[in-house]
Amino acid sequence: MAVARVTELVAASPVSFDDAIRKGFERAAKTLRNITGFHVTEWRASVKDEAIQEYRVTMRVTFLLEDTL
Amino acid sequence: MAVARVTELVAASPVSFDDAIRKGFERAAKTLRNITGFHVTEWRASVKDEAIQEYRVTMRVTFLLEDTL
Amino acid sequence: MAVARVTELVAASPVSFDDAIRKGFERAAKTLRNITGFHVTEWRASVKDEAIQEYRVTMRVTFLLEDTL
Amino acid sequence: MAVARVTELVAASPVSFDDAIRKGFERAAKTLRNITGFHVTEWRASVKDEAIQEYRVTMRVTFLLEDTL
Amino acid sequence: MAVARVTELVAASPVSFDDAIRKGFERAAKTLRNITGFHVTEWRASVKDEAIQEYRVTMRVTFLLEDTL
Amino acid sequence: MAVARVTELVAASPVSFDDAIRKGFERAAKTLRNITGFHVTEWRASVKDEAIQEYRVTMRVTFLLEDTL
Amino acid sequence: MAVARVTELVAASPVSFDDAIRKGFERAAKTLRNITGFHVTEWRASVKDEAIQEYRVTMRVTFLLEDTL
Amino acid sequence: MAVARVTELVAASPVSFDDAIRKGFERAAKTLRNITGFHVTEWRASVKDEAIQEYRVTMRVTFLLEDTL
Amino acid sequence: MAVARVTELVAASPVSFDDAIRKGFERAAKTLRNITGFHVTEWRASVKDEAIQEYRVTMRVTFLLEDTL
Amino acid sequence: MAVARVTELVAASPVSFDDAIRKGFERAAKTLRNITGFHVTEWRASVKDEAIQEYRVTMRVTFLLEDTL
Amino acid sequence: MAVARVTELVAASPVSFDDAIRKGFERAAKTLRNITGFHVTEWRASVKDEAIQEYRVTMRVTFLLEDTL
Amino acid sequence: MAVARVTELVAASPVSFDDAIRKGFERAAKTLRNITGFHVTEWRASVKDEAIQEYRVTMRVTFLLEDTL
Repeated sequence: MAVARVTELVAASPVSFDDAIRKGFERAAKTLRNITGFHVTEWRASVKDEAIQEYRVTMRVTFLLEDTL
Repeated sequence: MAVARVTELVAASPVSFDDAIRKGFERAAKTLRNITGFHVTEWRASVKDEAIQEYRVTMRVTFLLEDTL
Repeated sequence: MAVARVTELVAASPVSFDDAIRKGFERAAKTLRNITGFHVTEWRASVKDEAIQEYRVTMRVTFLLEDTL
Repeated sequence: MAVARVTELVAASPVSFDDAIRKGFERAAKTLRNITGFHVTEWRASVKDEAIQEYRVTMRVTFLLEDTL
Repeated sequence: MAVARVTELVAASPVSFDDAIRKGFERAAKTLRNITGFHVTEWRASVKDEAIQEYRVTMRVTFLLEDTL
Repeated sequence: MAVARVTELVAASPVSFDDAIRKGFERAAKTLRNITGFHVTEWRASVKDEAIQEYRVTMRVTFLLEDTL
Repeated sequence: MAVARVTELVAASPVSFDDAIRKGFERAAKTLRNITGFHVTEWRASVKDEAIQEYRVTMRVTFLLEDTL
Repeated sequence: MAVARVTELVAASPVSFDDAIRKGFERAAKTLRNITGFHVTEWRASVKDEAIQEYRVTMRVTFLLEDTL
Repeated sequence: MAVARVTELVAASPVSFDDAIRKGFERAAKTLRNITGFHVTEWRASVKDEAIQEYRVTMRVTFLLEDTL
Repeated sequence: MAVARVTELVAASPVSFDDAIRKGFERAAKTLRNITGFHVTEWRASVKDEAIQEYRVTMRVTFLLEDTL
Repeated sequence: MAVARVTELVAASPVSFDDAIRKGFERAAKTLRNITGFHVTEWRASVKDEAIQEYRVTMRVTFLLEDTL
Repeated sequence: MAVARVTELVAASPVSFDDAIRKGFERAAKTLRNITGFHVTEWRASVKDEAIQEYRVTMRVTFLLEDTL
């Protein structure tokens, strides 16, 4: 039986929350193997000069530890 | 005065969170009459082979009990 | 150092959650200066005649108090 | 040993929170046997034309499943 | 589509929680137009000389912003 | 400056939540001096033979420690 | 894509928490098809005559709705 | 109608969580009469030299106040 | 009996959390009369170039509404 | 293996939060033996005449029960 | 004074929750030195073909950073 | 747009909470580049021989992942 680890990321996009999630997942997949899923726990935005500058999501990413597979 | 019930669903879509919500609502509306609203309480995704496989939302659906209308 | 205030809004859209957030932010930006960001804390929808009538988000908007800048 | 189920209701009354609880309990008792208790978890009111229109309580009702008695 | 604001009050009464809620709502209705509802989130009492002095409720009041109607 | 202690009670009444609170406060005042207030944190009821048997409140009672006055 | 429902049970055993979970799962499996998992959210015990009478767990059981498979 | 008090314990065992609960309950029953139940709210373990040293549970024990029986 | 309002601030200081609280309170006292207290609910810091740049506290300030005194 | 109890205090100081914690700990240590630690869970202040009157902390103090040592 | 890190794992076992905890701890101890304890924060199970397939616990493991000892 | 990671530390000091935070931040800054901030989420103390032995803070530190800058 595998053991998984959970790591927390904050990903951002100037376009949308969906794009921020995609960016966060792509970055996670670049260094973590065996990702099994993620949980979006916070939805924020930063604002500058009266415009939304960045959509930001907090993501908790779960991935299996290789040696336990 | 009506009495409502709250039921909890988990709906999934390979496309997006918005699509998962739509699917969950459509399924709820198929068997429940007099839905008055819903609340999305969790946003998760399952991942397989380094790609997002399913977007999953937890929805709490409220509907009026017919005999109390 | 500036002091900021946090105010809570509920914004709605017949189209989508993204549109509700945009509407909420536009309304906030109309009367509040120096908004630095917002946090979306609740995602709900109202339903009528078996169709989603309004997507509703609760937003906590942070803005700097002018005299502290 | 019995197994119980927990179901969530939202009950309303134009008179008071106490009356809303009574209405919710009466409706629950009409279709559920072997209720052992309930928990009031939310207290809200709807307002129209500057008057309280409905007191609304969220109730989590617990009842024993017959075949487990 | 309207945008609403949520404001938090603490109302008190020497008589009962119900009376405290009524007082809080009356005060809110005096300065806020278009109140659509409220949520009672805390129930406290202050005590002096071995008697309940004040019943105190925390209320989150929601009202529509005029210009968005 | 005084130091206070917080103690948790569960009080019950066959009549109403208000009466349960009164009973809990009276019992607390019988053995604790210098009570400064209480916080009602849970509202439950037990049911028997399709009738509400007891209204039960959880109360957190704060009282000053005598030697710190 | 399937839609799942979440239902909440309280299961009890005079022997242990593990046995209570087993009893709750067996009862759930008797009437619900396509259970995919459960979440144990509360661990309580009732006591009588200075002995533990029942171990009680609150379980949130998830099952797929047949027509969505 | 009786009034109950809730007291919080942390109990430990080198053997297992079940044993820690038993130890906590036995200690509580030694000085408290009329215990009606308990709630296990936290599950922790301390580790030393790469071995689990103690399983520790936080228990909230409820007991009836004698004079209210 | 007075009715109070609760407003949320975020105050910052380059020196310490204590100083941030002081700054937040001073700013609040400049425009709000009859403040009765505040609650510090979040403690954060921003960092730049490997040094703490600002200590930031979220404060919920309670003040009595004049016309209810 | 020892069993510990957790008790909740509210301690106050006109000087600072740190001083309130010290006062609360000193008072606890006067009547409780074998304190193993404490947890500060709330940070509040009372205000009078536009000045901070008291810094108040809620502390949960853990101490070992003598007979279990 | 040492600084510790907290890492989150999800461990599974086909046998029991106790076994899942043991497996999670063993895996953690394989790569982390100076573990001082862990906290079990979630208890779930996956189900397949009407049988419990895996007991799954979420564990937050604390370990001292070597260079701070 | 950068992606950040959040890591959780527990830092301790025999002197004060402020010093514990400083120690935690210094240790974090030793191995993590591009820290953007931290959030203090728990405030505890360990006690020995009737004296505070260590002030302990739980800190959630956010830092940008280099390759995303």
